[in-house]
Amino acid sequence: MTYCVGLLLNAGMVLLSDTRTNGGLDNIATYRKMFTFEDPGERVVAIMTAGSLSVTQTTLARLREEIDSSDATGETSIMLAPTMLKVAEIIGNTMAGVRKDIVSRMEMERVSTSASMIVAGQRAGGEMRMFLIYPEGNFIEATEDTPFLQIGEHKYGKPILDRVVRSETTLEDAQKAVLLSMDSTLRSNLSVGMPLDLAVIANNDCKITMQRRLEAGDPDFARMSEAWSTALRDSFTQIQL
Amino acid sequence: MTYCVGLLLNAGMVLLSDTRTNGGLDNIATYRKMFTFEDPGERVVAIMTAGSLSVTQTTLARLREEIDSSDATGETSIMLAPTMLKVAEIIGNTMAGVRKDIVSRMEMERVSTSASMIVAGQRAGGEMRMFLIYPEGNFIEATEDTPFLQIGEHKYGKPILDRVVRSETTLEDAQKAVLLSMDSTLRSNLSVGMPLDLAVIANNDCKITMQRRLEAGDPDFARMSEAWSTALRDSFTQIQL
Repeated sequence: MTYCVGLLLNAGMVLLSDTRTNGGLDNIATYRKMFTFEDPGERVVAIMTAGSLSVTQTTLARLREEIDSSDATGETSIMLAPTMLKVAEIIGNTMAGVRKDIVSRMEMERVSTSASMIVAGQRAGGEMRMFLIYPEGNFIEATEDTPFLQIGEHKYGKPILDRVVRSETTLEDAQKAVLLSMDSTLRSNLSVGMPLDLAVIANNDCKITMQRRLEAGDPDFARMSEAWSTALRDSFTQIQL
Repeated sequence: MTYCVGLLLNAGMVLLSDTRTNGGLDNIATYRKMFTFEDPGERVVAIMTAGSLSVTQTTLARLREEIDSSDATGETSIMLAPTMLKVAEIIGNTMAGVRKDIVSRMEMERVSTSASMIVAGQRAGGEMRMFLIYPEGNFIEATEDTPFLQIGEHKYGKPILDRVVRSETTLEDAQKAVLLSMDSTLRSNLSVGMPLDLAVIANNDCKITMQRRLEAGDPDFARMSEAWSTALRDSFTQIQL
């Protein structure tokens, strides 16, 4: 499984993904699930992936080919597309195309080709936008009413987001929120695992403002996780039945 | 959907269920999902249900018929079975039988006959035992290592249980834990809803020690829920990134 979460806030966007991939319980590996594309000051696009690794890797490979192609246009390259909506369309169509190419072979073996992505980005002069791309290639967008999107194993980590994330949340609090949301998920589902990839894109920066990998045993994350456990247990003790 | 949770602790057992049932989003009703059977001081059995309402209702009806039957034996009646293990077997076999009877008709309409149950009980001279009965009628048992069982929409409410529930947890703390676990679930999933049924079976009481229905707007539950939200937000604010 996977857990990826993206917040779309007034101050910017915060993204967090795990890295665990598994084909059955006895075949576990670490794969990056967050991919960033920058033309600093002009355009930034970040993609997080969940689902079939062969589908998401092939989709990313095709997107990169189009970016590097000598005849790339705004219709084919996510770095030239005129709007973020067009970026989401290109990614959705590319993923749907990859699935279509392999689905008949995969289904022979009853292997799922399902996959989904979170796409976050901004181009100079435009707004920040964040999309969740479904396996079929269609998508929904984060809004002020629902300022976060999740893919993969999303349920364990949702209650904390529901309680603390608003559009006005600061980028610092947003990083705490996604890390604690991930912490709950890591504790409850073995198939979501460290290391983690964290990225912050401040509004109008049009670049990756901060990016960081948290390895297993990261002291900051361990301290936060422990402090949160202690705080929850203390709060629990104080509440009257 | 449904959310039911049962804790098996040194001091006793604590059970909580919601009451929302739906056939699609436009057909929502309230049905009790917790059923108790008592021969006070001699035997207590509590059953919580999730899944197809027609399957769980028919299963309960057949169990009651067997209890009331003039030729009931320890092989057929959960109130005469010699052990709690046998009680779980009777319930599992009854449910599997109900599903077998209707599955061909239900599958014509592509309606799921899946259902599951939590069974908790004690007979005089025996230990408290708690089982999760799967749709196929087989079951697992709560143990000291895993002192809680959940059925239905279990993910939102699991992190709090993972953090605070141990075999040594008091019955008072256990009631807080299941109510806060339900609170997280209610906030995140519309198809789980008030009122709630709460029951406590103290060790060696061999009866329902306490049973209570919490209606929508229950002031105690609302106060706890609000206090927990406030405590979580305060804790969140104090934690350093």
